[in-house]
Amino acid sequence: MLNIYMSMVASCPMDLYEKLNAQGDKVRALKAAKAEKADIDVAVQLLLKLKVDYKQMTGQDYKAGCPPSENSVPPDNGPAVDGADDEDTVDPWNVSTTSAKGVDYDKLIVRFGSSKIDKELVDRIEKVSGQKPHRFLRRGIFFSHRDMHQVLDAYEKQKSFYLYTGRGPSSEAMHVGHLIPFIFTKWLQDVFDIPLVIQMTDDEKYLWKDLTLEECHRFAVENAKDIIACGFDINKTFIFSDLDYMGASPEFYRNVVKIQKHVTFNQVKGIFGFTDSDCIGKISFPAIQAAPSFSNSFPQIFGGRKDTQCLIPCAIDQDPYFRMTRDVAPRIGYPKPALLHSTFFPALQGAQTKMSASDANSSIFLTDTPKQIKNKINKHAFSGGKDTVEEHRKYGGNPDVDVSFMYLTFFLEDDEQLEKIRQDYTSGALLTGELKKILIETLQPMIAQHQERRKQVTDEIVKQFMTPRPLNFNI
Amino acid sequence: MLNIYMSMVASCPMDLYEKLNAQGDKVRALKAAKAEKADIDVAVQLLLKLKVDYKQMTGQDYKAGCPPSENSVPPDNGPAVDGADDEDTVDPWNVSTTSAKGVDYDKLIVRFGSSKIDKELVDRIEKVSGQKPHRFLRRGIFFSHRDMHQVLDAYEKQKSFYLYTGRGPSSEAMHVGHLIPFIFTKWLQDVFDIPLVIQMTDDEKYLWKDLTLEECHRFAVENAKDIIACGFDINKTFIFSDLDYMGASPEFYRNVVKIQKHVTFNQVKGIFGFTDSDCIGKISFPAIQAAPSFSNSFPQIFGGRKDTQCLIPCAIDQDPYFRMTRDVAPRIGYPKPALLHSTFFPALQGAQTKMSASDANSSIFLTDTPKQIKNKINKHAFSGGKDTVEEHRKYGGNPDVDVSFMYLTFFLEDDEQLEKIRQDYTSGALLTGELKKILIETLQPMIAQHQERRKQVTDEIVKQFMTPRPLNFNI
Repeated sequence: MLNIYMSMVASCPMDLYEKLNAQGDKVRALKAAKAEKADIDVAVQLLLKLKVDYKQMTGQDYKAGCPPSENSVPPDNGPAVDGADDEDTVDPWNVSTTSAKGVDYDKLIVRFGSSKIDKELVDRIEKVSGQKPHRFLRRGIFFSHRDMHQVLDAYEKQKSFYLYTGRGPSSEAMHVGHLIPFIFTKWLQDVFDIPLVIQMTDDEKYLWKDLTLEECHRFAVENAKDIIACGFDINKTFIFSDLDYMGASPEFYRNVVKIQKHVTFNQVKGIFGFTDSDCIGKISFPAIQAAPSFSNSFPQIFGGRKDTQCLIPCAIDQDPYFRMTRDVAPRIGYPKPALLHSTFFPALQGAQTKMSASDANSSIFLTDTPKQIKNKINKHAFSGGKDTVEEHRKYGGNPDVDVSFMYLTFFLEDDEQLEKIRQDYTSGALLTGELKKILIETLQPMIAQHQERRKQVTDEIVKQFMTPRPLNFNI
Repeated sequence: MLNIYMSMVASCPMDLYEKLNAQGDKVRALKAAKAEKADIDVAVQLLLKLKVDYKQMTGQDYKAGCPPSENSVPPDNGPAVDGADDEDTVDPWNVSTTSAKGVDYDKLIVRFGSSKIDKELVDRIEKVSGQKPHRFLRRGIFFSHRDMHQVLDAYEKQKSFYLYTGRGPSSEAMHVGHLIPFIFTKWLQDVFDIPLVIQMTDDEKYLWKDLTLEECHRFAVENAKDIIACGFDINKTFIFSDLDYMGASPEFYRNVVKIQKHVTFNQVKGIFGFTDSDCIGKISFPAIQAAPSFSNSFPQIFGGRKDTQCLIPCAIDQDPYFRMTRDVAPRIGYPKPALLHSTFFPALQGAQTKMSASDANSSIFLTDTPKQIKNKINKHAFSGGKDTVEEHRKYGGNPDVDVSFMYLTFFLEDDEQLEKIRQDYTSGALLTGELKKILIETLQPMIAQHQERRKQVTDEIVKQFMTPRPLNFNI
């Protein structure tokens, strides 16, 4: 990446302005041509880098149609890339935005037709569960929902529910961002004392990636170890690989076929953007992700019951699967699953895209050593600070685009400490290096503890979690 | 149906000629609009009936564009319906032709790109198996193949193969036509001494028909009893319901997913005529019918072996599934299945369409009493005879369009007797009533014996056949 940037170094503001115009055109062209995600990402990253260079060189934000001058007012919301189109892309395979603050989640709620997790709902979860809301709820990291009030209404009347979440095992490597739904799901399991099913979509990864079935299945088992290390209750949790469970449960397959009968190609084309050139496995896969939303897919857990309500905590990019599921549910006589949606965990390089498991420097991996964690954060975490200590002290930093600060909102438990960091960074009292140090000291023990717990996860324990069996709960 | 015909009775040849023109237009319009098969069938049947009436009234064959006259020469190949388009329709859900002799199978071989089962191949099967070829081979009922020479080459080198056939269980009722592939498959199993897998596509029937999963599964088990009554060796035969076996065999599902990754919507659109309005279950189903073509879908039978060659005896309308399978096979590292294709078993009303399990008078059912058999044949079997005994004695009958004669080619074992019947019927020595009597006396004991054998098939025996287990053979 460095070489590309080097070759783009411009000699004067107007030169850079023109490079920016050209790069904005390129991004638009790639998007219009529905180019590969990776290509678009590279172009967007370069655009962003040029914007930062432009601001450094001119002290002004780049704005298409406004050549560099000496008297423009800097905006206060970070380097928005106005050159590209301003609709965020969010689907199960692509998440991209051109804003350094990340995806506009309020817009997404409107676009997806979900509901905001407001203070009233957070308070209600606190009241019903009798527990202080998880920091992900307090801080809007789980920000959107469908039918959560209905789940709580029923729970108050002693009608229980179950949790369903999942992971696409595309590699052995998991990063801290992958843990977000699991950390939150564990909390939900603990406070509501309910069963949980976790789907490993190894079949999906085989269909979408250049991997063998054996590789995808192995990744499913390896990833399950990291998931188990989050602390799930073995008596209340069933983890399954699609490749295994489809061949072990006629009831699961029956639900898959039921769903497949009630969804047309036109519908999945509209929801997922499939084309006639897509393989028939991709086209029919959404039914496989939908099926665990119905309790009779797990007769070993729920007996024959088909009316136990399902609650799905997941990142918002998975919502299209469950919009489809909720559309089908009443037509096949099942309750609609409820949902809790999280924001995305930003890449170290910034909140424009999701992280990539294939780029070791895009995030903190669960296998990173303390030294790797320190180096990655110091080298790669996008900073909202000013270029010099003097400027930073004078003008302060911008925590809204600062990745280290964002990571702390995910992992630092203490609300008061986090707020103090935000204020100090904004005022300039806290320097970028100091902020990064706090993050490093938060993540190093967290990851070390995870690694310690993962070591305890024997093959025997994984096998137990992944064996279809009754779970221990009262519904 | 009678009422429709009655209302169509015409007062004079020109009146009837115009009705025929109108009906031909209607058939063309229905086909162009891709109307429901049932609607097209009704229209074609009426067209055919009008043609017969026309011939009765005028002594001439109807020909579009040629109004009735007194001096046309009757053709010798039955009531071809020239008014409709002359391309036969043959796919897994529709078989229709406008010729009373049935589908033009030579044309079909060219269109499908398969090979004719010629005398050389029949002789070779006799040589390799050491058995007299089955009457279905001797009489061209199994008329087309793919790679049968290759199967025999390998067999001669002590490399064995396995058989795969199937049934779509759309109702409890099976008719004699449904037995054709099973009668032949049993012969192949006996003479080659090889394992056999029989797929009951209850999932397919659920996807295509207005039936519940439970109904389709029940039909699968009921139909399995009729199949078992054909005399298959329990030590060499595995019968499976898709709804059960998919949920019992991870290896089967793995092959389904492998196939689904290597077939696009464009391909199934081209092969099966699916549209964007079809449900995703139909679109992905072809992979489920393809998967049993690969021996590692049955690890309980073949261990992990993926290279045991598969031979599929089936009616030619199933060939599209296996053209697709053969296209995929080398790309996923498996041998292509070989095929033996049969002609269709004609409906009592004539060879224009396949029979319908929902029309009790369209065929002889396996549950029919001797009296029902007698009445159906006498009342409904389309006759190639002349209208009066005098005319029949003088001009003779046409066995090529006579359904009773066609049925005898399927079920009368004695070649010499069959040839004598053909000659006598053609010459006029044998009357239609006498021909029908021979058929009745052939079918009555055959069906009675089938019913007797089916009674012996206990639930326990069905369960044994349908349990995944090792089979007893040497490969």
